[in-house]
Amino acid sequence: MTGQPAPAPLGIALGDPAGIGPEVVAKAWEARGARALPCFFTMGDPAAVRQVWDGPVAEIAAPHEAAAHFASALPVLAVAEAGPVTPGVPTVDGARCALASLEAGIALARSGEAGALVTAPVSKAELYAIGFTHPGQTEFVAERCGVAAADAVMMLAGPGLRVVPLTIHEPLAKVPELLTVDLILSRARTTARGLQRDFGIAAPRLVLAGLNPHAGEGGAIGREEIEVLEPALAVLRAEGMDIAGPLPADTMFHARARAGYDAALCCYHDQALVPIKTLHFDDGVNITLGLPIVRTSPDHGTAFGIAGRNLAEPGAMIAAIVMAGQAAARRAATV
Amino acid sequence: MTGQPAPAPLGIALGDPAGIGPEVVAKAWEARGARALPCFFTMGDPAAVRQVWDGPVAEIAAPHEAAAHFASALPVLAVAEAGPVTPGVPTVDGARCALASLEAGIALARSGEAGALVTAPVSKAELYAIGFTHPGQTEFVAERCGVAAADAVMMLAGPGLRVVPLTIHEPLAKVPELLTVDLILSRARTTARGLQRDFGIAAPRLVLAGLNPHAGEGGAIGREEIEVLEPALAVLRAEGMDIAGPLPADTMFHARARAGYDAALCCYHDQALVPIKTLHFDDGVNITLGLPIVRTSPDHGTAFGIAGRNLAEPGAMIAAIVMAGQAAARRAATV
Repeated sequence: MTGQPAPAPLGIALGDPAGIGPEVVAKAWEARGARALPCFFTMGDPAAVRQVWDGPVAEIAAPHEAAAHFASALPVLAVAEAGPVTPGVPTVDGARCALASLEAGIALARSGEAGALVTAPVSKAELYAIGFTHPGQTEFVAERCGVAAADAVMMLAGPGLRVVPLTIHEPLAKVPELLTVDLILSRARTTARGLQRDFGIAAPRLVLAGLNPHAGEGGAIGREEIEVLEPALAVLRAEGMDIAGPLPADTMFHARARAGYDAALCCYHDQALVPIKTLHFDDGVNITLGLPIVRTSPDHGTAFGIAGRNLAEPGAMIAAIVMAGQAAARRAATV
Repeated sequence: MTGQPAPAPLGIALGDPAGIGPEVVAKAWEARGARALPCFFTMGDPAAVRQVWDGPVAEIAAPHEAAAHFASALPVLAVAEAGPVTPGVPTVDGARCALASLEAGIALARSGEAGALVTAPVSKAELYAIGFTHPGQTEFVAERCGVAAADAVMMLAGPGLRVVPLTIHEPLAKVPELLTVDLILSRARTTARGLQRDFGIAAPRLVLAGLNPHAGEGGAIGREEIEVLEPALAVLRAEGMDIAGPLPADTMFHARARAGYDAALCCYHDQALVPIKTLHFDDGVNITLGLPIVRTSPDHGTAFGIAGRNLAEPGAMIAAIVMAGQAAARRAATV
């Protein structure tokens, strides 16, 4: 018992108990040896796990107890009761349980009892029904961490590509007016800092996609590149950032092009999400940069349509756990 | 010499003589055996080919002579002189030669002397300098064939995906207003007919991407899906077309999703071009649907930066030749 203290276990919020969260968390635990996963525990209603999985569950009272059980059972911290759970059928009680799990996970990650927070998918419709007013979990986590939602940056990452959408759930028609120099500066700086802190990339290489076809072709197909993107890039380069662009989006994402950068900033949702989901549909991870805690999430939804049928693939949850563990270890090593 | 007459050879317009066209055509000829390519000849200045390739060239006076030479030499129909050619340095004489090659190719394909037209890349800047006023080769070919430019539909196709952009070289901010019910109806009908005629797909399955993130999420993130896309789909379905959508674009292009359709209609340039170039950067083909002739093109540009250095990959040209040959054979069989 000398030397480094054991790292804190990762905490996984189970998400909506009627979704595939409990199943993919349990399947990830089954893969702990094969995938060399770091110790983790999950937060939610243990009954939701037992309903879809007949493996060993160890109810724990605090995160530090997880290490003693992890080899032989899935450690579960019971934070709330989900009520009767029918896989595929979300309820308001389930949403309350999901929200309580998220709150617990944030608190434990902030206190350091959990090394990082991994969140399984929630059902926004049910959360809205119980008074949740945030666009999603990311904004909620940011607020609880005292970070402005605009400073919490969503990055989607797979083994071959990392993308950051500059605008997210906005109508396409609104995107041109939402792209501002300040927005690009803020997202680019947070992205570069996140690549250093959470991915261990000392000198991050960024690229910025153009908004228009062929990145505007010198102004012939739109002027946002000239009027907004280029001025932002000039500021960032003057700060010493290694950032190329604006690049034609269509030739940014093939294998040889991807080898030239560590993350791509994209102007809107589909420009970022189409390539990442085309390449990494089953192992994409959503990581929130700019927070005092490490937070990752598998890049899929509750998948109510297949919940409870043992059909869910745990690949993205496993990837989210691996990424969270690596980021937590990097932060611990640099404190 | 009984039975079917030999099919007409395919005609390849060499494109800009200073680009990689001559090199990839020559390399495609070298692969004729390994790839079982149909007989073809190329149109342009034979000197442009000899400048970048030391293989055997057979100058022919008419397309029907190609068959006698194809096994042992690249048949070239000299249609114009390009003047002095320096690979990588486009000139107006080169553009005139490229345009003459294109004119010849269209005429020979229309007369049936060429079984199909394959076009190598041209330099638009030089074409504009000699008075060319069309947005690109596609529109020029359409006009020469007596087809309105709006009825000539660009499809980009690779082994795993076919996409049709509904709008092409338009600023992103203009896309929402350009999407109309009539546009979608026209493009969808031409696409379905093209899949039947040129790809031999008797009952084509189409999908239509949403314009907005999550295909608008029921109107919460934009209303074009409700006001334009859905009404167009209703008309097409009433006609008996098998067309799904509007689908969230980000989850349309992974492998399992692609297995469910034959072609995807996309609202704008990058929505179509990002997935096809991510998946098929080296073997994507541009095929023009809705014409009386078969016309394909490799989905890359002149690549002046690598011209003349024996670095050009012929994969996309070979794929364009294969696709043209198959489409020509299907049309011939159904005449």
